Amino acid sequence: MNLRRIRLDLEYDGTDFVGWQVQPNERTIQGELGNALNQFLHQEIVPVGAGRTDAGVHAQGQVAHFDTVSTLDCERMMRALNGILPADIAATAVRDVAADFHARYSAVRKRYRYRISTVKSTLQRREVWALYQNLDAEAMQEASHHLLGTHGFQAFCNHDPVPESFLCDITHCQWTVSGTDLTLEIEANRFLRHMVRIIVGTLVEVGRGRMAVASIEDLLTDPDGNPQRGRLADRKNAGPTVPARGLCLRYVSYPGE
Amino acid sequence: MNLRRIRLDLEYDGTDFVGWQVQPNERTIQGELGNALNQFLHQEIVPVGAGRTDAGVHAQGQVAHFDTVSTLDCERMMRALNGILPADIAATAVRDVAADFHARYSAVRKRYRYRISTVKSTLQRREVWALYQNLDAEAMQEASHHLLGTHGFQAFCNHDPVPESFLCDITHCQWTVSGTDLTLEIEANRFLRHMVRIIVGTLVEVGRGRMAVASIEDLLTDPDGNPQRGRLADRKNAGPTVPARGLCLRYVSYPGE
Repeated sequence: MNLRRIRLDLEYDGTDFVGWQVQPNERTIQGELGNALNQFLHQEIVPVGAGRTDAGVHAQGQVAHFDTVSTLDCERMMRALNGILPADIAATAVRDVAADFHARYSAVRKRYRYRISTVKSTLQRREVWALYQNLDAEAMQEASHHLLGTHGFQAFCNHDPVPESFLCDITHCQWTVSGTDLTLEIEANRFLRHMVRIIVGTLVEVGRGRMAVASIEDLLTDPDGNPQRGRLADRKNAGPTVPARGLCLRYVSYPGE
Repeated sequence: MNLRRIRLDLEYDGTDFVGWQVQPNERTIQGELGNALNQFLHQEIVPVGAGRTDAGVHAQGQVAHFDTVSTLDCERMMRALNGILPADIAATAVRDVAADFHARYSAVRKRYRYRISTVKSTLQRREVWALYQNLDAEAMQEASHHLLGTHGFQAFCNHDPVPESFLCDITHCQWTVSGTDLTLEIEANRFLRHMVRIIVGTLVEVGRGRMAVASIEDLLTDPDGNPQRGRLADRKNAGPTVPARGLCLRYVSYPGE
């Protein structure tokens, strides 16, 4: 029997899940996926995800992998999976990958999107944070520039549990204004727990005029030892954690893509 | 006391409504709007809509009007309304209009959108019809050209009740392919009951190769008396009525806009 490693690309509406990770008696994406795969592969599967999205967080391009000895071709596997999975999870691609592919450890970059609507939103209400306030998008964009590059993000993460390292390399951080919507696209080699939601919460404070653009620098520590930086690098000095509903994992990048 | 006529521009997610029009013991958009207005204007209001969307049909730009002697300014009215209305209806604009403005009779054009997804859709599942089939979008677009102009659409409407006239002037009818989505944007001076959904159902038959592009001509009667046309202009010869969930009233146009 040949062991195959299968990669799944996934889309989901996180609204009615307690998050990615399997938990007893709770509706999770990993759990629903495992159940669906078990139904036609007749094998206990707990797929490994690229990252554990929190309750309410959506995905357009989550990636997971699992191993199987099934000989079912990928197209049929995808059809079976989408037929069995509930309406709020879909596989967008199913393919064989090399045995050393690992959804989490092979990932080199991830991109998230955060959407804010400044008016009441109905058709998009599960995917936006509605904030009925005028925001200075230019100041928010200017503040975002300070985040680019490699910094210590201890001010921008949940410390339970404390991560091994606070260093992240942000390669893209761009706000787009479209009508009454403000959307952040942010890409990095890794993200800490709640990091995007705290970054957005902090940039919104700038957009509201409650924090200065330049103060972002003081919240970031500098791995190259710039003493001007990081004076205020503590979670309590950054903005609040904004709601999960506005957040979507857009894609995960792997070497050679 | 000055009587004011107020225009409302509305967005809604039609999923959980039995339609626009008030019905006893049913959740309708007109009913929810009336209830919300009554709460702060202390006046029985049944707003008049530009058109009666069916159960499950969405709107980005429905228009309605009502009369009031309230002196509340429009911005406050909109805030009050959006605060009271449920999450699936929003006012996007509230303004004073001339006494002779009528949401329905003053309308000169309406535009609808219909979205088909050829793969399983999760985040957009309330707004698309999922049809897991390959469709020939070029043939569908070619067939759409035949619909442009003024024709009798008796084959393309629900005959309960029978409309006063079957003549409609289609000024725009365009499919767009985006990834795995096919979207029709269609604009006319008026639409008959279920007309967009039957047009889409017929064009999908063309896209599946079950109907010829040229056969669309035979389904339309010609007000100028072209005898080649309308040979098959009967509801039973057109395609099925596709699901409401993919349909959205994009906007209503009035003179001078």
